This record gives sequence, C-alpha cells and structure tokens, in this order.
Amino acid sequence: MTKGTETRQRIVDRALALASTEGIEGITLGVLADSLSLSKSGLFAHFKSREALQIAILDDAAARFIERVVSPGMKATRGEPRVRALFERWLDWGLSRSLPGGCIFVAAAVELDDRPGPVRDTLVRGQRAWISTIADAARGAIEEGHFSSKVDPEGFAFELYGLALATHHAARLLREPKTLEHARAGFERLIASARPAPASKSSRARHGVKR
Amino acid sequence: MTKGTETRQRIVDRALALASTEGIEGITLGVLADSLSLSKSGLFAHFKSREALQIAILDDAAARFIERVVSPGMKATRGEPRVRALFERWLDWGLSRSLPGGCIFVAAAVELDDRPGPVRDTLVRGQRAWISTIADAARGAIEEGHFSSKVDPEGFAFELYGLALATHHAARLLREPKTLEHARAGFERLIASARPAPASKSSRARHGVKR
Repeated sequence: MTKGTETRQRIVDRALALASTEGIEGITLGVLADSLSLSKSGLFAHFKSREALQIAILDDAAARFIERVVSPGMKATRGEPRVRALFERWLDWGLSRSLPGGCIFVAAAVELDDRPGPVRDTLVRGQRAWISTIADAARGAIEEGHFSSKVDPEGFAFELYGLALATHHAARLLREPKTLEHARAGFERLIASARPAPASKSSRARHGVKR
Repeated sequence: MTKGTETRQRIVDRALALASTEGIEGITLGVLADSLSLSKSGLFAHFKSREALQIAILDDAAARFIERVVSPGMKATRGEPRVRALFERWLDWGLSRSLPGGCIFVAAAVELDDRPGPVRDTLVRGQRAWISTIADAARGAIEEGHFSSKVDPEGFAFELYGLALATHHAARLLREPKTLEHARAGFERLIASARPAPASKSSRARHGVKR
C-alpha cells in the first residue's frame, strides 16, 4: 500500500466505527478529521464530500461482509449446508464486537430509507445483492432436493432476513440472553418447514426429517 | 382539553412526525419550536429538556400503538384468531402512512441501542411489554389447543418480531412490491408449524391442517 492508500483506509476504518454508533448521517468531516489528528484539508484530499465518504463506508462494510460472511458461506456444499453456513456467518457478523455499534447495514437502513440519493442507492444495491445470494442458496437447496420445490426462494430470503433483524434487535436493544437460542430455533423451524413433505416412513428416514 | 394540554399535544404530534424521519436523536428543541411557530421558551414551558420531550414522543407513540394494534387485536377470540389479529394490525401500523418516516420504534431501536439512559429505558420497557403481549397470545393459543404444547411462546414472539422487522425493511428501504405477500406467507408458515402435529388423517382434518 502507498501512504495515500494507507491514510484513506485509516479514514474509512475510523468512519465506519463512528458510523456504527453515531449513524452514517451522524458523521461529520470535522469530527472525523479531529479524531484522526488530520487537518480537514488532509481529509478532503481523500474525500471531496461527506457523501463520497458515506459511500466509501458502505463499500468498505460490504467488502468486509463479503469476506466474513459470503465467501466462507459459499464454500459450504450447495444446498442446505450452504444456507446453514451463510446464516451462521451472518449471526456472527451481527453479534460480533468488531463494530462497536452493531451492524452498520441495519442502522443505515433505518437512517436512509427516507433519504433518496446515491448513498441510499449504494445501500439498496448491496442489500439486494445479499438477498439474491440467500435466494440463490435456497434455489440450490431446492435443486439438490433438500428443500421442497414449493419453497419460494425470495420468500425464504425474506424470512431469514427477519430472523437476522430480530437477532440484532433482541441482542442490541433488549440485551436478551436467549437471543441466540431463539435465532437458532427459528432457523431450524424455517429449514424444517422448507424440507420436502415426508411421503412415507422410509422416505422420511432417507431425508433425515425429525418430528 | 385546556389550552395548555392542547399545545402540549400539538408539540408532541409534530415531534413524533419529525422523529419518524429525522430520528429521535435528530430532534432539536429549536427546530421544533420554529416549525410550530412557538418561542423556545414557550416550548420549554412544556418540556424542560430534550430528554423529557423524547420520552413524551415514545409515550405518545406507545399510546397510539396500543389504540391501533393492541386493543383491537386483543378483542379477537383467544387463541390463533387473536395472534392473527395482532399481527394484521401490526402490519397495518408498520406500513401506514400516518407517520411519514415509518415505525418510530424501529428507528428508535437502532438509534438508542448504544445510548444508555431514561429514553432508552422507556423504549425497552415498551418493546418488552409488546413482546410479552405476543408471547401471552401464543400461550393462549397453546391453551386453546390451536398451537402445540411444544411451542415456546417467547421463541414464537421472536420470530413474529422478525417478520415485522423484515416487512419494515423490505417496504421502506427496498420498496419491494412483494413485501405484504412475503410477510403473510411467512406468517402462515409460522402458524402452520406451531399447530399440533397431525396424529392421523382424521385428527388432521379436525384441526384443519393444510399440507
């Protein structure tokens, strides 16, 4: 990395951490420059506007999400194992202490939903890509025969998204000690109801379906 | 209503609408006073601090939520019908245009999770009360024999919460046209998996369980 790239990355790292607690709309270039002992013009050399910085924050968070959730999850076997791996990685991401304020995407979704513009567009593109990844994983599970052909992959992605949002809410706002237990039970129920209906005792045993 | 009560209510109404788009942390007494053509001291006569106003906003929103969701939902027959009525009213609340920025509780949850204090405490108390109401409705459905005795009422409430949060996210951020369809399909799946396992063909028919 050149010195310029290093400084840029240092700015984005700090901005991402700040945005996770203060909100992506709570970021000001002045406060950020101070907290990095940079001059405001030094910061401006890297980001010409607050909007450019906000987009860089979301891009950086998306890159981290891909590295920590999507890539390792996609390495799992196609079908139910991949759906399971993606969800487990996603739980880790949401509950990890690496961002002080929790998942930046959850916070940004609420902040930006009423604010049309390129920052919101960046967030929506990223969220849609992730939802498509989940729906594709569900489609793979249908094709592998792990899920019933009646499962709607987009509906499945919606429900999995709900479990992740409920996890974030219960853990971060309510500090509910049973959060992970509830999240995993909900996931198992979702998976069980996605499996093909057992046609007979023997096929039930073959699919490993539990009652 | 006395004039004082009327003015107080007018302040809270405007503050609630503002908070739904700008965030409950985005409220400033100055901006609020201007938008109501009140002097700052006129506003201070009703709310001695920003914190007192934020608590009043949450209390007012909770009263509206009880009026529009909890009370009418609780009038439905105990058991599955009550669970269903509560969820339908909740969907209406989250998707209604009566608050320009969507559900104030979803926004406040994300803003306040990192901000200990009486405002956060007020929100948490309200959220816990609502979750208890859902869990109690699920408990009623178990007692009525509509749900299996294996259903964990708190887990059920967690999953229903997830569907509501996913609905808010899909409708407000993604502007997903299939939001309601996904929400209702998720709800039907949740209900179906909560029903007692069919012991035989005849008992299945008796419970009206669909495959």
